Amino acid sequence: MLKYKVLHTEGKARRGVLKTAHGDVNTPAFMPVGTVGTVKAMTPEAVASTGAEILLGNTYHLMLRPTAERVAAFGGLHKFMNWPKPILTDSGGFQVMSLSGLRKITEEGVTFQSHLSGEKFFLSPERSMEIQHLLDSDITMAFDECVELPAPHKKVAESMRLSMRWAKRSKEAFKDRQGYGLFGIVQGGTYQDLREESVKALTEIGFDGYAIGGLAVGEGQEEMFKVLDYTACALPDDKPRYLMGVGRPSDIVGAVARGVDMFDCVMPSRSGRTGQAFTSHGVLNMHNACHTDDHSPLDAECTCPACQNYTRGYIHHLFMAGEILGAMLLTWHNIHFYENLMKQIRQAIEENRFEAFYQSFLERYKDERKF
Amino acid sequence: MLKYKVLHTEGKARRGVLKTAHGDVNTPAFMPVGTVGTVKAMTPEAVASTGAEILLGNTYHLMLRPTAERVAAFGGLHKFMNWPKPILTDSGGFQVMSLSGLRKITEEGVTFQSHLSGEKFFLSPERSMEIQHLLDSDITMAFDECVELPAPHKKVAESMRLSMRWAKRSKEAFKDRQGYGLFGIVQGGTYQDLREESVKALTEIGFDGYAIGGLAVGEGQEEMFKVLDYTACALPDDKPRYLMGVGRPSDIVGAVARGVDMFDCVMPSRSGRTGQAFTSHGVLNMHNACHTDDHSPLDAECTCPACQNYTRGYIHHLFMAGEILGAMLLTWHNIHFYENLMKQIRQAIEENRFEAFYQSFLERYKDERKF
Repeated sequence: MLKYKVLHTEGKARRGVLKTAHGDVNTPAFMPVGTVGTVKAMTPEAVASTGAEILLGNTYHLMLRPTAERVAAFGGLHKFMNWPKPILTDSGGFQVMSLSGLRKITEEGVTFQSHLSGEKFFLSPERSMEIQHLLDSDITMAFDECVELPAPHKKVAESMRLSMRWAKRSKEAFKDRQGYGLFGIVQGGTYQDLREESVKALTEIGFDGYAIGGLAVGEGQEEMFKVLDYTACALPDDKPRYLMGVGRPSDIVGAVARGVDMFDCVMPSRSGRTGQAFTSHGVLNMHNACHTDDHSPLDAECTCPACQNYTRGYIHHLFMAGEILGAMLLTWHNIHFYENLMKQIRQAIEENRFEAFYQSFLERYKDERKF
Repeated sequence: MLKYKVLHTEGKARRGVLKTAHGDVNTPAFMPVGTVGTVKAMTPEAVASTGAEILLGNTYHLMLRPTAERVAAFGGLHKFMNWPKPILTDSGGFQVMSLSGLRKITEEGVTFQSHLSGEKFFLSPERSMEIQHLLDSDITMAFDECVELPAPHKKVAESMRLSMRWAKRSKEAFKDRQGYGLFGIVQGGTYQDLREESVKALTEIGFDGYAIGGLAVGEGQEEMFKVLDYTACALPDDKPRYLMGVGRPSDIVGAVARGVDMFDCVMPSRSGRTGQAFTSHGVLNMHNACHTDDHSPLDAECTCPACQNYTRGYIHHLFMAGEILGAMLLTWHNIHFYENLMKQIRQAIEENRFEAFYQSFLERYKDERKF
């Protein structure tokens, strides 16, 4: 059971707060991804210093290694990884589809091979709930199937309906407690009738929050926004809405304008390791020779430690020399950039100037298409 | 010109303080290695938090990339890498011998190929002094030749005498300023007569400190201690003595007992990246499965953040998953272990119980031979 309160709205954009067993999450919120019990190349203290209030952990990765039972023996994921704030875990469904080897899907669940060892595993709504309980996730995601898009209506419909039956079993298997909650996941691809059917099925079951799944898989921003336009507003007003795996800064700002409250994406951390820096004017590739003699910070407007203490020239040097500190500083900066964007969004909604913020953001944030 | 004061002695062990343009260095001191402008996998703030008061930078690496002239344009190495405390740079001589491709040694200097690009470079005493000046090193090392050991007396003698002529040219080329100093390097392999000849040559030139070079290159601890026994005490009492590239904890404690004041070694940082943890009872290999379910810290006596906040089981997990945070935490711990060892050594000398400390250290520190 999770308490969620919408504090203020401007148009469809919402400013809220979600109360969990491990603390409050101010929304709109961005969740850095801590796949296997760590946000790559960052200490949890550094992650917290960016303003992040909640992390995402991956059920699929953690069930394979070190195993959910082992994490539980260490006192849960918060203690294991030294992150005392809220954690949301995905259900494992998406990674089973995208990462594992041979897999077999039945009504009961999915049998699959570990991408690490080839060993066979089984995931079902009940097992996914059990694993997320062992991990001590504040927010548990219902177990769902993710179909590869584009796909014909019939295939997407069948997959969505299986996910809805799994959502019901997830709800039944979830051990409800104060401060812990379960989110359902809307599926249905880019078909409006299927999205609406999915919303109806989920709201009849009743969840602590609703995620919109199966987007940001190559359909393009315009198509994604179209789906959000008819999906987000169909969801209950009094529950948080989470757009899974999204995304680029402009995706996030646009989705907030369409009523979304929560986001996660590997983009800021992965980009940090590959030398891409998010700045208020777009994206920089720190491998480029143009940075060699540049004494300015990554982003003159940024207050993160990488921008306060280091030059573009130095960070370029670290990437040219293959130094780990390059990935450390740039990941820190990128997560800080995302969390600062969320802070700006929250303030703008509070002050009824989100629409103006959205327009000015689009005007100066030019360079995003590199991704 | 550097001020050095011996504050207290116990037997041959010395407790002193070295005053540089960027702050004081308490000796005996260990210098973490920041090869190419970063201690690998650590922020400089984290390095400072271990108690480190001085870093070592590598002339060879920095002259190739980003180049000494570029570092100077960024305001020197301290500013470039955000390390405001003292820095010692080596002369480049050792790395030219160990890393570079085709090289040609003449009386004038060494022509060599970059191990990165194959490009040709030239190093001489004068150019090495110029580079270290551009880097703004608090402690500059004289340019020397390092001969591969074991080698016959004649070969070691010739190499040492070349290094002594280069030491004289280094002294002449060094731009002396308050708070900046130049160290000479004693060579002569494991031949007592050559070491004594080298000490005599260097002390006649006169330096701010004296390094003992050409050791820890496979001759074994016993042989190294023998060389220290007759070399360290031959050096001036009122100048710091620096044992280059050393070493294991027991090497350091034994060398302090023989009158050495300063050390540097890649061991704690390199070991941190390869999963070796230094503890007060010896070395742990964090890849070992025995750590999987271990809820205890790396070292119960250690106050570093890795030991305060994480279990052996978690750090084992990070190494098994190939996570950068594993290298970050273990490097932090290892540097902290080394700096804490130096702190214990300094306190023991101050309190006239260094000999007892040395004995008890050897008794409980069993496991070092893994290196």
